[in-house]
Amino acid sequence: MNNDLPLSFLNPTSIAIIGASKNPAKRGYQAMRQLIRDKFSGHIYPVNPKEDEILDIPAYKSIEALPGPADIALVCTPARTLPGVIKQCGERGIKGAVILAGGFSESSEEGAGYERDMLAAANKYGVRLIGPNTSGAFNLHRQMNLAGISNLQPGGLGLISQSGNMALSITTEAAAGGYLGFSTYVGVGNQVDISFGEYLEYLAADPNTTLPVLYIEGFKDGRKFLDVAREVTPKKPVVVYKAGRTTLGQTSAKSHTGALAGSYEMARDLMRQAGVIVARRSDHVIPLAEALSISPQPKGTRLAILVDGGGHATIAADTLADEAMSRVELAQLSDRTRTRLAGILPPAASLANPVDVAGGTDSNPGVFADCVSVMLEDEGVDAVLIGGLYGGYAMRFDPAMLEVENETSIRLAALQHHHQKPIVVQSLYAPLKPEPLVTLREGGIQVQESMEIAVACITTLISHARHQRRLAAHPPYIVETRPDTGQAIIDKARAENRTSLFEHEAMDLVAAHDIQMPRYQVVRSETDVAAAAAEFADTRVAMKIISQDIIHKSEARGVRLRLRGKDEMTRAYNEILDSAREYNADARIEGVLVAPMAKPGVEIIIGVYRDPVYGPVLMFGLGGTLVEVLKDVSFRAIPLSRADAQEMLEDIKTGEILDGVRGARPVDKDALIDLLLRISGLVHCHPEIEEIDFNPVLATHEGYTIADARVILSVEA
Amino acid sequence: MNNDLPLSFLNPTSIAIIGASKNPAKRGYQAMRQLIRDKFSGHIYPVNPKEDEILDIPAYKSIEALPGPADIALVCTPARTLPGVIKQCGERGIKGAVILAGGFSESSEEGAGYERDMLAAANKYGVRLIGPNTSGAFNLHRQMNLAGISNLQPGGLGLISQSGNMALSITTEAAAGGYLGFSTYVGVGNQVDISFGEYLEYLAADPNTTLPVLYIEGFKDGRKFLDVAREVTPKKPVVVYKAGRTTLGQTSAKSHTGALAGSYEMARDLMRQAGVIVARRSDHVIPLAEALSISPQPKGTRLAILVDGGGHATIAADTLADEAMSRVELAQLSDRTRTRLAGILPPAASLANPVDVAGGTDSNPGVFADCVSVMLEDEGVDAVLIGGLYGGYAMRFDPAMLEVENETSIRLAALQHHHQKPIVVQSLYAPLKPEPLVTLREGGIQVQESMEIAVACITTLISHARHQRRLAAHPPYIVETRPDTGQAIIDKARAENRTSLFEHEAMDLVAAHDIQMPRYQVVRSETDVAAAAAEFADTRVAMKIISQDIIHKSEARGVRLRLRGKDEMTRAYNEILDSAREYNADARIEGVLVAPMAKPGVEIIIGVYRDPVYGPVLMFGLGGTLVEVLKDVSFRAIPLSRADAQEMLEDIKTGEILDGVRGARPVDKDALIDLLLRISGLVHCHPEIEEIDFNPVLATHEGYTIADARVILSVEA
Repeated sequence: MNNDLPLSFLNPTSIAIIGASKNPAKRGYQAMRQLIRDKFSGHIYPVNPKEDEILDIPAYKSIEALPGPADIALVCTPARTLPGVIKQCGERGIKGAVILAGGFSESSEEGAGYERDMLAAANKYGVRLIGPNTSGAFNLHRQMNLAGISNLQPGGLGLISQSGNMALSITTEAAAGGYLGFSTYVGVGNQVDISFGEYLEYLAADPNTTLPVLYIEGFKDGRKFLDVAREVTPKKPVVVYKAGRTTLGQTSAKSHTGALAGSYEMARDLMRQAGVIVARRSDHVIPLAEALSISPQPKGTRLAILVDGGGHATIAADTLADEAMSRVELAQLSDRTRTRLAGILPPAASLANPVDVAGGTDSNPGVFADCVSVMLEDEGVDAVLIGGLYGGYAMRFDPAMLEVENETSIRLAALQHHHQKPIVVQSLYAPLKPEPLVTLREGGIQVQESMEIAVACITTLISHARHQRRLAAHPPYIVETRPDTGQAIIDKARAENRTSLFEHEAMDLVAAHDIQMPRYQVVRSETDVAAAAAEFADTRVAMKIISQDIIHKSEARGVRLRLRGKDEMTRAYNEILDSAREYNADARIEGVLVAPMAKPGVEIIIGVYRDPVYGPVLMFGLGGTLVEVLKDVSFRAIPLSRADAQEMLEDIKTGEILDGVRGARPVDKDALIDLLLRISGLVHCHPEIEEIDFNPVLATHEGYTIADARVILSVEA
Repeated sequence: MNNDLPLSFLNPTSIAIIGASKNPAKRGYQAMRQLIRDKFSGHIYPVNPKEDEILDIPAYKSIEALPGPADIALVCTPARTLPGVIKQCGERGIKGAVILAGGFSESSEEGAGYERDMLAAANKYGVRLIGPNTSGAFNLHRQMNLAGISNLQPGGLGLISQSGNMALSITTEAAAGGYLGFSTYVGVGNQVDISFGEYLEYLAADPNTTLPVLYIEGFKDGRKFLDVAREVTPKKPVVVYKAGRTTLGQTSAKSHTGALAGSYEMARDLMRQAGVIVARRSDHVIPLAEALSISPQPKGTRLAILVDGGGHATIAADTLADEAMSRVELAQLSDRTRTRLAGILPPAASLANPVDVAGGTDSNPGVFADCVSVMLEDEGVDAVLIGGLYGGYAMRFDPAMLEVENETSIRLAALQHHHQKPIVVQSLYAPLKPEPLVTLREGGIQVQESMEIAVACITTLISHARHQRRLAAHPPYIVETRPDTGQAIIDKARAENRTSLFEHEAMDLVAAHDIQMPRYQVVRSETDVAAAAAEFADTRVAMKIISQDIIHKSEARGVRLRLRGKDEMTRAYNEILDSAREYNADARIEGVLVAPMAKPGVEIIIGVYRDPVYGPVLMFGLGGTLVEVLKDVSFRAIPLSRADAQEMLEDIKTGEILDGVRGARPVDKDALIDLLLRISGLVHCHPEIEEIDFNPVLATHEGYTIADARVILSVEA
């Protein structure tokens, strides 16, 4: 056990089994049997008050009675025993406990008491807890298997799962595939102590883990996970399947874990921002992990497709378009490449990408390698997807082809290695595992039966590499100094016990961060109105009530629009005050805000809120009713990088509107990106800000106007 | 050969092989060998001018020299020979030809000539053509295999494919699964003669085919297919994978087939309307076909889910929500059912749907059948999905469980049969094919490894059955008589050589079909304007130029809005005329339309157009720029049924707007449904109508206003 590693007890030299048993149906027996069978090289200490030995290993009556300290304990006893058990573990120097029992705070008041006492003991003695209600844990490189999942090979996948059955699914699928092995598994159970973020730290530090894979229903501390992920993903790819992605799913996730699930789309956006690969479907997890484990990293985003039939070309192209978020492009093959392909393939072949060999491989599958060689030499190609029948030519046409087909597989593997550009092969023969496909896979090329999954693999390789490059090039935008004027506004509001800034205060705070705000005046008398009318003689204005007691200004009839001139404005001023008093006779009225009507533009909404799980988050979308129905918004954790801000604009489905439709001019995206960064900076340096709502922001080809600004502060601690 | 069947030559008693060969690399040899190996029971006539026998079967020098007529010919000779070959086939009484060669109109002018002459000969002699450029055809119940795909078992699937490789994929996947067999296969090739619709007629009539499966890139005659499908789907389920579903895909489909691909979403909507099951992914095709082949038809839409672990419950619920279009609901289990489940399962079990056994099956997998028995007895449950580990208990826990697990499988199959409610099982052990899962499948219960695919199967069973009930209950709405007033308007426009109706004509035509239109006046003088001002004294009005030479009225500044009173209207009238003359001095001006401003409401667009492939089609969506970007519209072929119209409203993603958001009242959906039906009736009885554009229609809680109506007639033949 190396104590420098986080959660180092997962690399134990000695294991205590609390509640070890002679009953083969009990986990306390099964775990012993598994450790013995796997030849765990350290000490095994069964603890059972009634037994002298279990499976010929001397048993101890109590934890206290152990002959030496153990690194880790598997605790098989029920919930009510846990406060005592953890205290004894602590006293005996045990660093980590894997707690199988359920029946804590998720099930009853009584259980919540056990949980509290157990945690108190754990904190006092520094015992770290896995679970409770966990399916177990293993470290196959240590022959420590406390998870009850057998027949696995050691390897590079480190699996953390919030569902024991999903862990079983994932490991079974990997074992059936025959190639992937595991380093570590931890079932997080109820996560009362160790969070996903800390587990990820462990996997990052563990030299045996090359690829962390996580099944997550809900985070307890999402921000910690994001922070760790941002550090880890440049070194090891991290694959997450996030369940509970729908209202239905969330209901189910909550009733099973009590965890905060949040909106799926937000969690997905934030994890992607941190470089995490978020699998869209549960049956993508293992294929993606495999692709990432064995393939070279593509240097660009241009994909070439090679098929031996039009049907597969069409389906590959269809599926690629479904993966639009991956930002993969179909490569434009160079003239030289097309000429060279024409020299290899029959006249009926399609030389545009997708390249269709049109029968050109029927008598010689070696032509696949000839084509791939030409395609990979093209500077405009970063990765190749082969689709169709490859691997089954000998099976289908002539057994004599087997030799050349095997040789072709070796050539393809060599080409991938030489060019360091990934190749993924979709073959309808994949489930039959013909020799040429086995040869391919052993040479480091991934093979899939399903075109959808093959496309998901190659696009993930490409988009992940692209994301790594962008992460490296764009550090988060951090504002180091907070302007005094801004801080003064916040301090004043707090001094007055207000959590909501007046709109003009919000405007001043924002302006202090060099965000362009409309000029305004606050009027408190008809004289003020006259002055404002003079000031804004050149434009129509909006007037809005300012009162900490009136949140819904329109509802209180406290807004008047498109006003011009002293008379109209004075009338509006008095009407606004009358309406406000009628709405709430006790309302404290600060004044009336006068500001020019915003120039028409594309309606945008920009929001900030501090998520209880993920911390401060920025939201961007188009304004209006429809977008609300479509929930077409993108999220990023604050602080953002410039690349993040840019991608927020690209990620929404209605993003095309920003580029100008029906003859409209495109909006100034750089101005919006700058705005998002400055808001991020503002929130990052004023932790008192709880929420921001700029709705609408009106974007035009020459900039933007923030037509309504709302800032909410947190309640002072 | 039964001549009463369409395409009866696909059931041949004699086969001619034109271009038979002794060269094992040639199709003309391979087909002979396959027929002999399969013991084709009729005559085989090889035709080759240079051989006396091929594979010991006497060969003939020419088609003319055949000793008797043949039902079908496999033609292996090149494109240039085809005009002559088809002529000779016709003279010799051959009814159908399977043409392998490519090189016709898809590749050159010369080839187009061959195609023309071949078709002329085919028409003259009544020879029907499969292909050209087909991968072949088979009828396994006749031992007639001209497709070069071997090792298939005969069965109920009838496969029609526009890609030889996709046919190979589908048949290989089915063969690997081990359960599904095929009746017929046809590769449609370039579809110069027989269309998908006619092939579907054949499969419908073929007693050996229980389930037609089609891979389609583009239709030549989509309307024919829809018409046939509407007849067939109540008797046999029809599964289609429609490729070319994206812009990318379409490009590829076009370059490969020359077929018109149309928009994927439209094709999907129209096929669903006709009762076709449209597979979303290519790897769904065989699983869906299998589910439909073996499962009882559910009588309602309420699904119960049973899992042995929270992870699978969450993923099942997530995936179910992804299939929202299937309109499947999670069943609400009755109190009695929950009480009975509570008696079977441990206290930790979740008794709400999804039901999680929470370890309650670990020692006895028979509990699965106990639970399913209770669930299927619930009147509120129409189908059950089991997810998780079922089938692997013996493998995972204790080999001694095998017997009870097998028995459980038999019980589950009996329960499905007894209740006639379908069960689908997702098991992570599926790829390992343990005995209990084999027993399940042999008992008629489908088993899948992937949760996504299992959910697709059970939701398809449910939605298909639902659709069958709705098709039966809702015949298309047909208008038998065309109102004289409407016809007079069309006749007048035609007499004046106009293909575009004036807006007031369009309004009158529509009103003649009892569609509520705003009152209007056409003014042609200031006197008229004064009269109109009196008539519309109670409301503000819109005024629009009426001219057959001005299509874009706004561009010509020929529209004025929100006018009131004689003075404003007279000024607007003169300005409109001035602007129109300025825009186009030669424009023939019919007058100016005056109509009340529409009451504000939800902006809707309703359109009709005659698609060259699918015939008249109705489109429905919300109006405005955003919807255009999102392409969020639904399509139905005209004539519609009431159920079709209702589903059009439900199918759009923004449909929630119709139900009222942000406190707005829901629109009157019945009025909109009625409107869609009447438009359908109008177009059905006036075949002269080429296009209709009602944009916008403003819908409120008490009806709708068609604020702009545009009707285009076809150019007279």
